[in-house]
Amino acid sequence: MRTHYCGDVTEALLDQDVEICGWVHRRRDHGGVIFIDLRDREGRLQVVFDPDREEAFASADRARPEWVLRITGRVRRRPAGTANNNLGSGQVEVLAHEIEVLNEAKTPPFQLDDTDVGEDVRLRHRYMDLRRPAMQQHLVTRARVTSFMHRFLDGYGFLDIETPMLTRATPEGARDFLVPSRLHAGSFYALPQSPQLFKQLLMMSGLDRYYQIVRCFRDEDLRADRQPEFTQLDVETSFMDEGEITELMEQMVRELMHDVAGVNLPDSFPRMTYDEAIERFGIDRPDLRIPMELVTVSDLLTDVDFKVFAGPARDPRGRVAALRVPGGASLTRKQIDEYTDFVGRYGAKGLAYIKVNDPTAGVEGLQSPILKFLPESVVTDILARTGAAAGDLIFFGADRAKVVNESLAALRVRLGHDLELIEGEWRPLWVVDFPMFEYDEDDGRYYALHHPFTAPKTDSVEALKAADPESLVSRAYDLVLNGTELGGGSIRIHRPEMQWAVFERLGIDAEAAQEKFGFLLEALEYGAPPHGGIAFGLDRLVMLIAGAGSIRDVMAFPKTQTGTCLLTDAPAGVDNQALDDLHIRVRRPQKG
Amino acid sequence: MRTHYCGDVTEALLDQDVEICGWVHRRRDHGGVIFIDLRDREGRLQVVFDPDREEAFASADRARPEWVLRITGRVRRRPAGTANNNLGSGQVEVLAHEIEVLNEAKTPPFQLDDTDVGEDVRLRHRYMDLRRPAMQQHLVTRARVTSFMHRFLDGYGFLDIETPMLTRATPEGARDFLVPSRLHAGSFYALPQSPQLFKQLLMMSGLDRYYQIVRCFRDEDLRADRQPEFTQLDVETSFMDEGEITELMEQMVRELMHDVAGVNLPDSFPRMTYDEAIERFGIDRPDLRIPMELVTVSDLLTDVDFKVFAGPARDPRGRVAALRVPGGASLTRKQIDEYTDFVGRYGAKGLAYIKVNDPTAGVEGLQSPILKFLPESVVTDILARTGAAAGDLIFFGADRAKVVNESLAALRVRLGHDLELIEGEWRPLWVVDFPMFEYDEDDGRYYALHHPFTAPKTDSVEALKAADPESLVSRAYDLVLNGTELGGGSIRIHRPEMQWAVFERLGIDAEAAQEKFGFLLEALEYGAPPHGGIAFGLDRLVMLIAGAGSIRDVMAFPKTQTGTCLLTDAPAGVDNQALDDLHIRVRRPQKG
Repeated sequence: MRTHYCGDVTEALLDQDVEICGWVHRRRDHGGVIFIDLRDREGRLQVVFDPDREEAFASADRARPEWVLRITGRVRRRPAGTANNNLGSGQVEVLAHEIEVLNEAKTPPFQLDDTDVGEDVRLRHRYMDLRRPAMQQHLVTRARVTSFMHRFLDGYGFLDIETPMLTRATPEGARDFLVPSRLHAGSFYALPQSPQLFKQLLMMSGLDRYYQIVRCFRDEDLRADRQPEFTQLDVETSFMDEGEITELMEQMVRELMHDVAGVNLPDSFPRMTYDEAIERFGIDRPDLRIPMELVTVSDLLTDVDFKVFAGPARDPRGRVAALRVPGGASLTRKQIDEYTDFVGRYGAKGLAYIKVNDPTAGVEGLQSPILKFLPESVVTDILARTGAAAGDLIFFGADRAKVVNESLAALRVRLGHDLELIEGEWRPLWVVDFPMFEYDEDDGRYYALHHPFTAPKTDSVEALKAADPESLVSRAYDLVLNGTELGGGSIRIHRPEMQWAVFERLGIDAEAAQEKFGFLLEALEYGAPPHGGIAFGLDRLVMLIAGAGSIRDVMAFPKTQTGTCLLTDAPAGVDNQALDDLHIRVRRPQKG
Repeated sequence: MRTHYCGDVTEALLDQDVEICGWVHRRRDHGGVIFIDLRDREGRLQVVFDPDREEAFASADRARPEWVLRITGRVRRRPAGTANNNLGSGQVEVLAHEIEVLNEAKTPPFQLDDTDVGEDVRLRHRYMDLRRPAMQQHLVTRARVTSFMHRFLDGYGFLDIETPMLTRATPEGARDFLVPSRLHAGSFYALPQSPQLFKQLLMMSGLDRYYQIVRCFRDEDLRADRQPEFTQLDVETSFMDEGEITELMEQMVRELMHDVAGVNLPDSFPRMTYDEAIERFGIDRPDLRIPMELVTVSDLLTDVDFKVFAGPARDPRGRVAALRVPGGASLTRKQIDEYTDFVGRYGAKGLAYIKVNDPTAGVEGLQSPILKFLPESVVTDILARTGAAAGDLIFFGADRAKVVNESLAALRVRLGHDLELIEGEWRPLWVVDFPMFEYDEDDGRYYALHHPFTAPKTDSVEALKAADPESLVSRAYDLVLNGTELGGGSIRIHRPEMQWAVFERLGIDAEAAQEKFGFLLEALEYGAPPHGGIAFGLDRLVMLIAGAGSIRDVMAFPKTQTGTCLLTDAPAGVDNQALDDLHIRVRRPQKG
């Protein structure tokens, strides 16, 4: 129906006849002539209607925004001084000979150029929202990312293999979406949270290298920027150790960023242990673009009278840490109060600080409500250890280590943005040597920090059984980019006796292990190869690359924070017959 | 952990040291030496252990089938006369220097070489079944097919765009799988039967060219070779008519078959109308490799006394058709009885036939129980019209047209295989000009033959409203290969008034249309472009290309005919808390 996309009509086509199809982006009369900006996926093109072509002129005169037109005409250079250098097609226009109205349109619910439209309206009329060039570009970027992944992994002999969506509920994970079975009354499928066990089974099947770009599901309360269904690039390989896997995946990400975004990542991504990341940044996915670090000062404070510091400093599970903010001395009282509220959300009970006006002038050069509680020598040591310079400010966190780490990690990122301290564009990082287990105080038990199939560093079942659970380190690795976790993976357990031992340390007894993971434990008995893999969160990766403001902006049809599709109005009620067929009934919420 | 795949070790590596990993396929002692055939995804390799390397020899001596080994050794030529020309690595062997047992294995539940293992056992131990080279090859073929599709469609500017899996129930389709919502009590998501409406909405969003290799779901009773979840290649494009779409898709299939299977399909696929396909083959997906056709003989039989023929011959909804079977005169009475039973499954009440021993000898040259009921001139006309030759047999179908078509279509395929009449390897066909509507006698209403969004050939809403529903032809097209429907699609309705009119003809009133399809009808009001597309069944396509016996053999983890995963034992019961969270209860089947 057309010879060219609107955006592809350039000076190379001067004096040629073209046929184009698209949407009326704007129509205006000017000096008895009608101008229509016609828009398609590739761009916009100015079309001119002269009154001497009566029929075409009359149709153009009727046309309104978002009408769909097919136009035949000749490409000509725009008159001098009227070129639009912002458009690829901005040097030319098309003089229309014929016009066909392919469809009319009602007045749009919002202007495509309007950047201040509520997200609910955008989602309800998603077919309009997706006509915006920026939104189309996000989806184009997403398609380029997945296309690159297919090419890269196909090239390295990875097989794209599909795993089931109707599967068995995952114990030990987040809440599953369930699907009632019609043929098996009272039984349910679960939608996969990840293809973890299936990809391990594929390795046990000898398929050697697997990948899949796959939808995953979690029925969790949706925090900002989470979706009930999300997509991951899932990779698994046999006979490779963590060095080989991370090297290959690093190469993929490096080439991907170059190919899709023109970004040059470093030749070798830095590595950092989990312990170091927590110590220096309070978090296992530090944004290395922010030139601030946490500095432990507990040892300097164990003997001070100031209980707020001395208590956590003496507590083995406590921490006192300082965060030097370059130039932070200019922060106002009001700003500091706001940051105090901010860290309060992470459980911090306050936010002590010292403003450093002149570090050479002793306490006279400082300004702080806590100076009176601290010996001068301690203050001097803190200044020296943090490297404070004139004009800096030092914030303190003093509490259980978890609270200090979470609050100062968040504060660090917030300050980095607020004070525009961010350096460099892209800072990737591998975080390694994660703990195997994490104690949950509420449940009074250990959980696997990654998942229960992650291999420990030790090959010895006896060592695993004997060690302090908190001291055990796993063969897991996370790839972090600018403070976002792009992906995470591990070497998996491939010997049945080690898997049993890990279940035991997680407090899963033999009967429960058999009930929940019997098929995996059995498969491990039949010659499982050493294997490992990784999964990347596609939505977040594309969001970073596309520079989108939310993951909803890189998904065609996302859901709201209550899991609703405003366009189709899903979820919805269904008729009783359907429920009868599935052997279920709706249980109405009880009042009162 | 290795330098080469087992299957990649060839004479090019003679006298080099290699490291290989894999499974013990076979182990044997011969003349004091141990031979292990080591297997990985790429093939098998013979490894030799000499007793003078004591440690390696002892480990090799312990090894059993399916143990996982890592071996270091030197490649050498096999002794004269011991080469295995069936293996890529069959000219060489590896003299082992070192061996590492990566994992042991219990005695496998079945021998990988055993071709006579029950499917239940194979599915229960799928990780063993998938170690068979044939099964691995099927999954490799599948990966090559999807890889090709990505490359082809990316190359033509199609965007790989994901559509939701948690969506709204589809009225007018098969039964949906439902997913109870936790956040919206009493509401349900449905898993998509296809992304039909979303891909149309993407066209209305101006995204121009879309594709997706996407999981789809139907909660139907599973006939042989159906799966509750299946995969389709889903394509949609704007501003292309059916000629352009089928041409591009034909090119894709042609290049795909060449690239993946080395098959050369014709430069231009033949086209046939739905009516012609039904007339000549009784079915809209004829296998053109079978050189037999149905021939209508109703007009010759309206006046005969033989009611079995005359009744359907006179009935406007009846049909009498002949099927000439080349060489069929050699069929025995017992065989003919079996075919009679066979067509009975399709509702045929009998299977009349005439054996043609000598077509020049009048009725003397024929053999048939029905000759006595038919005038000789009629018999002569039938012989002439069917082109019967000596040694042929003519079968007859006489009943309602639907019964005749279905039974003779099935009989034709069965005879084609039984009598080895199949000619040529690959015979593609486009079937076009489908009816818009199909009357369902049970429900007493019309249904859309494809789906209710399929455009009619007429652009006139008035013509659509006025015409006999059975006379209306759609802009749908199906691609058939060797009697299998590979894909089907259509140009869609893009004007709201036409969509309303089609709903009306389907007996869907305005209120129901608004309730079920309101968002689509609204989207059509805002400038929907002309658009159309197609969907290919990936599982079946791969099955054809791979020469697999069932679609289960081209899926990594298929389900049984009752929708069970024998490996993971899904679906399964869930605890009451999970059901409470979802606001549902299981309704136990009522006894008696």
